[in-house]
Order: sequence, then C-alpha cells, then structure tokens
Amino acid sequence: MKYLHVTMAGNTIGALFRLTTFGESHGPAIGGILDGCPAGIPLDIQAIAQEMARRRPGQSEITTQRKETDEVEFLSGLDQGVTLGTPIAFLLRNSDTRSADYDTLKDVFRPSHADYTYHAKYGQRAVAGGGRSSARETAARVVAGAIASQLLSRYGIKITGFVSRVGDIVMPALNTAPDRSAVDNNPVRCPHPETAHHMVQRIEEVKSTGDTIGGIISCIVQGVPAGLGEPVFDKLSAALAAACMSINAAHGFEFGSGFSGASMKGSEHNDEFISDADGKIRTVTNHSGGIQGGISNGMDIVFRVAFKPVSTIMKEQSTVNTAGQAEKINPAGRHDPCVVPRAVPIVEAMTALTLADHLLRNLSATLTPSDQYYRQK
Amino acid sequence: MKYLHVTMAGNTIGALFRLTTFGESHGPAIGGILDGCPAGIPLDIQAIAQEMARRRPGQSEITTQRKETDEVEFLSGLDQGVTLGTPIAFLLRNSDTRSADYDTLKDVFRPSHADYTYHAKYGQRAVAGGGRSSARETAARVVAGAIASQLLSRYGIKITGFVSRVGDIVMPALNTAPDRSAVDNNPVRCPHPETAHHMVQRIEEVKSTGDTIGGIISCIVQGVPAGLGEPVFDKLSAALAAACMSINAAHGFEFGSGFSGASMKGSEHNDEFISDADGKIRTVTNHSGGIQGGISNGMDIVFRVAFKPVSTIMKEQSTVNTAGQAEKINPAGRHDPCVVPRAVPIVEAMTALTLADHLLRNLSATLTPSDQYYRQK
Amino acid sequence: MKYLHVTMAGNTIGALFRLTTFGESHGPAIGGILDGCPAGIPLDIQAIAQEMARRRPGQSEITTQRKETDEVEFLSGLDQGVTLGTPIAFLLRNSDTRSADYDTLKDVFRPSHADYTYHAKYGQRAVAGGGRSSARETAARVVAGAIASQLLSRYGIKITGFVSRVGDIVMPALNTAPDRSAVDNNPVRCPHPETAHHMVQRIEEVKSTGDTIGGIISCIVQGVPAGLGEPVFDKLSAALAAACMSINAAHGFEFGSGFSGASMKGSEHNDEFISDADGKIRTVTNHSGGIQGGISNGMDIVFRVAFKPVSTIMKEQSTVNTAGQAEKINPAGRHDPCVVPRAVPIVEAMTALTLADHLLRNLSATLTPSDQYYRQK
Amino acid sequence: MKYLHVTMAGNTIGALFRLTTFGESHGPAIGGILDGCPAGIPLDIQAIAQEMARRRPGQSEITTQRKETDEVEFLSGLDQGVTLGTPIAFLLRNSDTRSADYDTLKDVFRPSHADYTYHAKYGQRAVAGGGRSSARETAARVVAGAIASQLLSRYGIKITGFVSRVGDIVMPALNTAPDRSAVDNNPVRCPHPETAHHMVQRIEEVKSTGDTIGGIISCIVQGVPAGLGEPVFDKLSAALAAACMSINAAHGFEFGSGFSGASMKGSEHNDEFISDADGKIRTVTNHSGGIQGGISNGMDIVFRVAFKPVSTIMKEQSTVNTAGQAEKINPAGRHDPCVVPRAVPIVEAMTALTLADHLLRNLSATLTPSDQYYRQK
Repeated sequence: MKYLHVTMAGNTIGALFRLTTFGESHGPAIGGILDGCPAGIPLDIQAIAQEMARRRPGQSEITTQRKETDEVEFLSGLDQGVTLGTPIAFLLRNSDTRSADYDTLKDVFRPSHADYTYHAKYGQRAVAGGGRSSARETAARVVAGAIASQLLSRYGIKITGFVSRVGDIVMPALNTAPDRSAVDNNPVRCPHPETAHHMVQRIEEVKSTGDTIGGIISCIVQGVPAGLGEPVFDKLSAALAAACMSINAAHGFEFGSGFSGASMKGSEHNDEFISDADGKIRTVTNHSGGIQGGISNGMDIVFRVAFKPVSTIMKEQSTVNTAGQAEKINPAGRHDPCVVPRAVPIVEAMTALTLADHLLRNLSATLTPSDQYYRQK
Repeated sequence: MKYLHVTMAGNTIGALFRLTTFGESHGPAIGGILDGCPAGIPLDIQAIAQEMARRRPGQSEITTQRKETDEVEFLSGLDQGVTLGTPIAFLLRNSDTRSADYDTLKDVFRPSHADYTYHAKYGQRAVAGGGRSSARETAARVVAGAIASQLLSRYGIKITGFVSRVGDIVMPALNTAPDRSAVDNNPVRCPHPETAHHMVQRIEEVKSTGDTIGGIISCIVQGVPAGLGEPVFDKLSAALAAACMSINAAHGFEFGSGFSGASMKGSEHNDEFISDADGKIRTVTNHSGGIQGGISNGMDIVFRVAFKPVSTIMKEQSTVNTAGQAEKINPAGRHDPCVVPRAVPIVEAMTALTLADHLLRNLSATLTPSDQYYRQK
Repeated sequence: MKYLHVTMAGNTIGALFRLTTFGESHGPAIGGILDGCPAGIPLDIQAIAQEMARRRPGQSEITTQRKETDEVEFLSGLDQGVTLGTPIAFLLRNSDTRSADYDTLKDVFRPSHADYTYHAKYGQRAVAGGGRSSARETAARVVAGAIASQLLSRYGIKITGFVSRVGDIVMPALNTAPDRSAVDNNPVRCPHPETAHHMVQRIEEVKSTGDTIGGIISCIVQGVPAGLGEPVFDKLSAALAAACMSINAAHGFEFGSGFSGASMKGSEHNDEFISDADGKIRTVTNHSGGIQGGISNGMDIVFRVAFKPVSTIMKEQSTVNTAGQAEKINPAGRHDPCVVPRAVPIVEAMTALTLADHLLRNLSATLTPSDQYYRQK
Repeated sequence: MKYLHVTMAGNTIGALFRLTTFGESHGPAIGGILDGCPAGIPLDIQAIAQEMARRRPGQSEITTQRKETDEVEFLSGLDQGVTLGTPIAFLLRNSDTRSADYDTLKDVFRPSHADYTYHAKYGQRAVAGGGRSSARETAARVVAGAIASQLLSRYGIKITGFVSRVGDIVMPALNTAPDRSAVDNNPVRCPHPETAHHMVQRIEEVKSTGDTIGGIISCIVQGVPAGLGEPVFDKLSAALAAACMSINAAHGFEFGSGFSGASMKGSEHNDEFISDADGKIRTVTNHSGGIQGGISNGMDIVFRVAFKPVSTIMKEQSTVNTAGQAEKINPAGRHDPCVVPRAVPIVEAMTALTLADHLLRNLSATLTPSDQYYRQK
C-alpha cells in the first residue's frame, strides 16, 4: 500500500488581509498573492523596493554574498499603481542558484536545518538551497509587508525594528522608538552607535572562525489605536507571536515585560491609567507592552524576537544520510554569519501584516441608511 | 451616525481539531464546541474531571478561594461515551458569582486588566468578574484539551508541564520530562522538591503583603512523531506560541534554546544527527527543542511560557474611570497570588489542542482501491 | 491496523458572522455558538421565539405531530439582552425522544436517509432519530438566523420566503415580495390563497396514502445595498446556494432567471439600467435576481430552493442491513408529509445568516484620525 | 471623511486542497497558487495543456475568436514534474488584450455585466475586458482542476461534463456517463450527435442575429467512494453547488432529481438499497444523485448547472453611465454566442477541485505505532 503524504498546508497568513506565498529557493520564482487589500490605495512601488534592499543579501561585509534578484514583478490587483481590491500577485525570479553546489548534500541531513524534517514529512524534498525552507522565502513576506505598512501609515501606525542583541553584546534599553535612519546607518541595524560597533566586531570575529551567532530583534509600534486583537484565541499578542515565530530561526517571542515579568510583583508590574493633557487615556508605565487582555490599549506595542545562530557553519560536522549512516559534511556556500541585521525588515513585515489584518478585523460599521443611498447612487 | 463595533471574532482555535469557546465569568455558563474529533474514541470522562480538578480554584492555600462549579455537562457528539465524529458540545454552569462585588468597578478601569481595552473595542463590557476576559474562560480549554490528550495518547504522545520559576526562584534544569506525580505532589507544581518548597514560601510571602508574583511554566512533550507542523506560516513552533500566548497573562514563549540561543554560536547550537541502537534517527543535543524548520523532528518538544504577575492586588491603586477622571481603587475579591500553579493544566491543554490539530493535519492517505472496497462494503 | 475515521468537520458557516451548531436529535440538547455578532444590539428574544414557533412541528394537520421543546436558553454573549460582541451560545433541550421507536432500525439502512452514508463515513452512527442528520438540527439555524435578521433589519434588509410549489401545484408568479401575514395565514405558507388551498388538499391526499411529496420555496430579499458578495469564489449567489443546499432535503437552487435562463436569449435576459426618480440606479427587469458578477446590485434578491419529498413514508420498503442482507422495513413514527411549509423559516434563516456575513464582510473603513481619537478617549 | 472599501476577499476555494487565483483579464497575467496538493505525485503537464485547449477561445465557429495565451508557466511546487507538497504556483500571461476597445466603456455600465456592481463595491474598477470579472479568470481554475483530476484518477474517480441543453434544444437523458470522446467530437460538447447538430444550428442562428443564448451543463462523476461530504454545512451537495455557482453566468444548480424532485412522491423518489453481485451496497435508482444527507453514497454523482445567455450582444442597448445619465451602447468585441461548450471543462474543474478537497478532508488516519517507526526511520 502506497501512502500519500497528505497535509493541510500552511502557506497563508491573515484572515482579512491574507498573504499566501510560494516558491523554492532554487525553483523558477518565489512570490505571493495578497488578497483583501482595500481598493483605492496608491502604492509606492519605490518604497517596496527599498524594503527589499534592506533585506537583500550582500549589503555589507557581515551579510551573505549570495546574489538575489530582488526585482518585484506585480501581476495583478493594480490599475496604474492603485489597488483595485482584487488579489495583488507578485513574483521574484530566482537567479544565481548554483544548484550544483548542493549535489553533495542531496542524501545527507545538515544539522539543525530542515532537511530531515522535510524528508520525514513529505517523503522527499527540494534539495537545492533548502527549497521551501530557505530564507529566500521571506522575500515574499517583505513585499507584502511593505504594502501592509503603507496601509497602516494611512492610520498613523509606524513600525520600527532594530537589533538589540548579538551574542553577548546587548544594547541599552530605549525609552521610545528610534529613528529608522539611526537603525539603518550601520550594517548591524542597531540604533546605538557604540553597541553597533561592538556587534559588528563580534560578527566579524565569529565569521573569521567559520562560525555564526544568534541575536535579538526588538520592535516598537507607534500609533496603534486601542481595540485591535480578538478574544480569546486571536489575541493580538498571540497573533504577533505566531507571525514572528514563523520566521526562519526564530526561537522566542516576548512582549512588554516578557520573561522578566516572571520575576516581578503585581504592584511593580501594573500599569496605572491616567488622562494626558489632551484627555486621552494612557498608562504611566508600559509593562503591558501596549496589549492588555490580548487587545491593544493605544500605548506603544513593544516586543522582542530571539533568533538562534545560523545553522550553516564553515566547520566539519557529523550527521547521518538518508539511509541513517554516519557521515561528515563540510559545507561550502555563502551564508550570513548572523541573521539578525537582515531579519529586521522581515520582523517589521510580519508585524505589518499582522496589524493590517487586525486593523481590518476591527472596523466600525458605517452602512447606515444614508450610506446605502451613497453606495447605490 | 451610530457605529456598530464590528470585529472578526477569534473564539475558535485549530483547523481540523477545532475548539470554539463561549461564556462570561458571571453569565449563565461557559463551555465550548469541539468539532473534528475523530469518531470511535471512547472518552475517559473521569480523566477529564481530573484535569478540571487540577485547574480548579481553592486547591490549596496558595490559590484563590473562589469557588467554581467544574462539573462538565456533555450535550452532544457522544453515544454511550464514544465519540460520534460530530461536534462535542459541553458546558459548565457558573455559580458563586457575587456580581455585587463588582458594582463599584463598573465605571472604572482596573490597572493591567482588560477593562479598558474591552471598553475601547466593544463600546461596553460585561463588568462582573471581567466577563469574557476572566480566567474562568480557560476551564473550557481544559475540557477540550483533556479530550485532545486522550487522542494523542493513542499515538504515544505525552505532555508534561511544570512550574520552573516563581519570581526569582528558579528550578534546576531537567534532562527529561518529570513524572506527573512529582509535579502534582506539591501545591506549586514544581517537580523539584526543594525548589517547590522555596516557591511556596515566596508565594505565601507575596500573598501576605497583598501582592502577586509572576512565573514560568516549562513543558516537555514526548513521543511526537517527526513531520508535524506546516511550512511556512503554520510552523509547529508558531502554532504552539500562538496557543500559549492566548492564555491570560502569558507574556513570553520560547522553545529549545529560546532566548538563550541568541547568545550562542552555530557550532555550539547545531544538533548533530545520529542513528540510535534501534536504527532511529535522532539528535545528540536538542537545542532545536524538537522542532526544525517549523516541523517536529521526533525528539522531545521543549518550551517555556512566561506569565506576568496577576493584576488584582490587595493594595490601593490609581486609575481613571470611563469619563477619564482620576480615581483610587481598593480591590476586594478572591484571586491567586501566583497564576502558574493552576496554569499548568492550561498550558498542557493548549499544547494538546495544538498537537492534536497538527497530528490530524499531517495524516497519510490510505484511500487505496482496497480501502474503497472496505468502505463501501 | 485500526483506522480512525478522521474528517475535517463542517459544522460552521460564515466567515465574520459565524455559526457553529451541535447536537443529535435524541441526545441531551442541540444548539450553537454564534461568533462575530456586533456588540450593542438589543435582541428581541420574543421575535426569536416566534421564528421557532414557525418552524415547530405540530403546528397544523399537515405537519408532523412530533413534539419538540423549542425553548431557547441563552448561555453567553448577552448583558441584559444586549449583545456584548462575545460569542452568543444557546441550547435547546431535546425531549419526547422515544428512542425505543428506533431500536428496530439500528442495523438497517432506511432508503434515502443518511443512515448508510453516516455509517460509511464514521464507522458508526447515532441511530435514534437520525442523530445529527435529523431535521431537528435546523432548529439551531433558526435561532441564529433570527438574530441575523434583527441585525439586517437595522439596515433595512427584509427577507420573505414562501411556498411556491407543492408537487404539481404551482403558485402564479409574484411581482414583489408578499406580506408575511399572507404567507403565515395558511398552514402551507403559500401567499396565494387559492393555490394554498390546493396545496393543502394535495398534502392531505398524499398523507392519507402514507406517502410524502416535494416542493419549492421561493425567497425575496428587499433592501440589500449594492456591493455584497466577494469575487471570485465567494460570490453572493454561490454563498446563498451553499447555505440553502445545506438544508436537509434541498436538491436544487436557482436565482433570478435560474434554469429558465438556459432557454433565453441575451437580448431578452439583459437587465437594462435606468435612474429612478430619486436618482438611484436600478434595472428595468430583474432576470439577474439582484446579483450580477456575484455581487448584489441593489435590486431585490430572488431565488428558489427545490426540496425532494420526505424519505420517511408509511409504506413497506426494501433495503439492506449493515451486513448487506436484504430486509423489509415498515417505518413507524411521526414525520411531515411535506417538508416545505416548515422549511420556510429555515430558508429564511440560512438567507439571513448569509447576508449578515456578507454585510459584515463588505464594510467601509472609518478608522480615520478623528475616529482614533474618539476610540481612545 | 474618506472611506476605504474594505472587504473580506473571496479568491480562495477549498479547505485542504486550496486554490487562490489572481488576475485581471487585461493585466499582465492571471494564475493561481494551489496549496495542499500531496507530495509525490508526478504531474502530467500535457494533460493540463489539453484541458486548457478545451477551454480555449477560438476552437470553432461557435466560440469567441478572441485569442488567449494558454501557455501555463509553473513557478514552484514541482521537482522534475513531481509535486513537492509545497504550493504550486502558476501563471498565464495575457496577450491580445486590445484595451483600446474598452475606452468607450469606461464610464458606462454594460447591462447584466459586473461593471455596476464592481463599481458600487470597490468605488472603481479595471475597465478593460471586465478585469477580474472576466471569464478569462476561469483559465486558472482549469489549470488547478486538471491537477485535481489527476489526483482523483489515482482513486478511480472520473468526471464527465457535457452540454445537455442549449436554448430550447434538450438532449435525451443518459443512463450512464458518456465517453469524453463522444463529448469532444462536436463543437457544442453534446454527446448525442443528433442533438449536438441541432444545438450548433441554434447557436449559429442566434449568433447571426448578434444575440446569445443560454444552456445547461450536466455532469456525472463515477468512482466516488461513500463518505465524502461534511455534516452539516459543508455537505458535498452544498460544496458542489457553491463551486459551480461561482462560475460566471451560472444561475442554477441541481443534483439527482433536482427541481423535478419537487413534484415527486417519497415512494417514487426513495432509492432502495441492494447488495450487488460483488457484495457492494448500492441503490436501485439514483434520485439522490449519489449524495444522501450531504455525503456521497458510492453511486454516480449527477448534477446540472444552468447558465444564462452571455451578456455581450451585438445590439444597441440602453443603460446609464457612472453619473446616472441614460446612454446607448453598441458593444463591439469578440464574445461567445453561447457559453456552455467552453464551460464544460470549467464545470469539470470546479467539480474536481471540490472532490479533491473533500477526498482529503475524509482520510483515514494511519499514524499507528508501526507507522511512526516507519516515518522516523
């Protein structure tokens, strides 16, 4: 009896603002369909390209030198650059694929990659470059996330991610979101110049030994109205966690006080309410990270995502092959010594997709009798 | 123009093994519908009751003395205790509700509760006991989770949660899952007796000052086959994160190396593959926490959930009322000084629901010609 | 190897206005959870009871004399009768179940019932009364549909179903929706008195021979704004078809010209646009049945649902038992000779659920900066 | 206050075997992503091309002469033609678009097209060729449907659609599914030669007067195992109805006895069970059309879809423009005088997509301990 490996696939994220992605790293193309983007929004295509540039390999000495085509082709959903309300499909062709590099890997499971688990799940896998499990896949997320950001900016919502830790190098805490210019003016995307300098040094050091290192990305979202997030399972905190934990190499997520909240007392942790000078209700502190009961409270949303070190190292490692026999592998190739600098736009993209979805999920109905008239006239 | 507060509600979790819950803490009842449970499974109703007892308030001196009716009434989906494949509906009546306790709170927003955010989202709220935002809601999760656990146990999957941190008291690391008897033989549900003793002391200390304290629950899942989890958005790690972060007061989630992975090098972190004595492929270490590329690899799944301290404290606090005016509140009531001991069965329930769903999402098709014959005969 | 009969269950309908139902006809209760109903709507509980009365068995000589408890208990989602925005759970206890009536049927498949298919699908079934396949299940739909209707009536949307055919007795075509009073003033729910008289005669005739007969329900929806329905798969016509075809015994659905459109020419069928005296755009004819390209156009939505005759007849029939051996059955019991009079409120309920869902799916966003201020203040 | 036209888009069909399509008729491309196709299936690309040829315009004198590029480019999900279990993305470039043809139509609503409803829904529309509402969109359905058919054929399931009515020309009833060769050997796709001849005459007659005509497609599915379809809302009959009613111009759906069942008695309509020579349970008649209680019973599934006449006619018509003012339009362009011959592969595609989805939804679990071992080794 021959089994089919049937599975309920998970390549879609979002309920109302829905992204479905496709593509293997060494297949013809990657891309996606964004369904549910409201009609009538003029897209800034140049701004999308800029986000792609921020994610692109080869930006600096501390990122992989693999070349990728990052030119986005839009196939539908736009009329002269304005959204039609119909699905926005886009693709990025793959190039510089060098599949031959992977020939020696086709029967062997690289440690801490997805080779073994894809093999176990599907009974086969696209060997070259990790196929669907490659970080190449995240490029499609950045395209859609950049569109989401443009929607959010119409409502005054602004997302800023940055690297707050690389290995043992930790950035001092910030009181507010940094300027993106301060984030992007150094190759490690840490807005604190002195820390950034140390981080770059640490990455270069690690790289010189053929090794890799983990890190943490922090993210602050300003301008989120109170009310986003759905009780009880689709809490905004749960949705952000899922979105960020779906990024390759992400191993942890926390918001507000996060893990440090476990050692705090209620009297320290509680965020008291006040009315500010404009009569707006806000909290004095923000240990809640902008989310209470799973719903945004109008304060900055603050969270952090931990990334493990990249699995591809320039050292010999022990493993087994598909027959279960011990083998040694000596990977060659071009990979990042530290994933976090290039993962900043990816975290921002997943945040934007999540917030755009929850913004649309939380609209006020306006279909009053007068509105009906308007709509039909 | 009158606005309706429209929202895409989020009271359902799971794709194939789907739980939808309902109920306000001080309404007539809470409960749920579990849809997608396979037919033909004899349910152990007593085992469900035992899980409810583990979650129940008033178990010990260090938990709230609020009384709850935990008697589960099953309304459908069972025939003489065996699942029919149809929706399993169940309810728990509310009692001991003392709504009058809450009269003084109806126009005021308790700090770090969901009062303000529910009000902002819905334009109104069920004041008594937090309504839908109450931890009472998690009782329905435990019922469904206990059913999920029974399904999982047929496949040899076993989930063990335990308290690994309370405030600054941290349990030493374990090499394997503890016995549940070791977890449940102390009121704080920590399987390390000495640490458990200190944790109880710390909670009593905090309670005596009218304060509360946070903590961490660790969870180890044994027997998960390789292959569960769906690329790219519905990774098993993302699904577990979302499920656990949807629990009240959860502020952080990490699996495997988690946040500590951010300070590790690739050469330390990579889990090398070997074949064990039975010819089964496994890894030497388990920094991946049993999940690689978002898919289970057959090793133990290991993760931790951080909980903030309970917001209800027996101290005066400053806040504002619905009109935005400053007020003082002096909460009375019965609440847990530390949430983690009673949250252990809730974390286990959310884990069971997630794994049952992903188990069903990853089945092998067997509808061969012979099978068709079988089915039609 | 023991198989589990796994299936992705289908007890939920709607995307934003979502109903999940549960319950076997002879189990403890039936009911449902309605998730996504906007907050702040005062429900008219009496109006819900009236809809239940219209569906109730035993209303007249031409309906089944089976007694049902139609008292609806609301368990959540309401505060003093006003919706909270949280799930509205409700149940109806079963009574008068007479399970013993069904003992002789437990090993035999009744012709054209769901006995055989449930058995094939689940490997077992709740024998008494058809279990989940019983028309008793539709009572939960009527409860939720009555809530949907109350939401729709706020927007001026009104649904009127009526019986337009019983066997060979056909009602003359109407130019507009009949008054509900004209529908409900006769036991067959046909608004044309003379036709109603003939229909009742035909049903009594059929009943006297122990037989049953089919019929057609027509439905007209007034006041639907233009714009409801989602390209390309979730067209409003497709959604109404699915909703109505999910009703027990439904065998056909058509809207506008329907099957007769197959014999028309484009020049006859096309609905020309005009502006009416109020400047509102409308069509001269309505062969489109109010839906063009899957989207409502502001005209009356008009459709028909065909129902096969009830399968339970008072005549001996041949069949097989679970072992495949030939048997004769002589059903006893209490069933409707014609399903359509009692199915009118069910068709209306499914229509209301579908339109409420699509109304919420098609809202205009109003989260402008001023609105943000309003929400946070 | 500027409104965004927000909507929950509906460009995805299927729960486990999921197709999402994109594309405007005169944009760069149309296409789709098929997610959930099991791994390990070698696709017959040539067979997909053949289905595209059956749908292609310009096949004969009685179809539109518009030229379309029907070359399908696969972008992902395949490795040397074998499915990987990852999303299968594909596109078809648009060509021969002649957008200038549509310039005169940009401010006017063509009768019985989707111009007005798209305008009302989105506040704008892609004017050329109907944009998303064009029948061009169905090409993506045929690609995915052809893949679904290949999956189904592994289980012995075979779908045959054919034209059974054009205007007043009706084909005699069949006892069993016709051979596809008999369907495809005439331009109208009617397997009864004499009727086919009359249908072609009728279409040519109608075409010569600049008019169009409606028709009916019948479909018979052989080899479906008992058990497909999900109580209570996702009945197989409801799913087929929704899938078929989502096709452009579809106005009616019926299965088994359909609308004629409304005039039948139960004693005529009931399908008695027998055991055939092989011991397989079947029914003597098939008024149920292979579906009982919403679940397949192993008999042929039989249904019909009614199509209205094509809206584009070569005659002057009255309408209004976007300002509501009366206008005359004299459409030019290339359209089908009768849609049904080319819609046969589309009906088959929607049927295949629906059955593939329900096949996967109804699998038997086999994750036994021995299977776990197999999977991990």
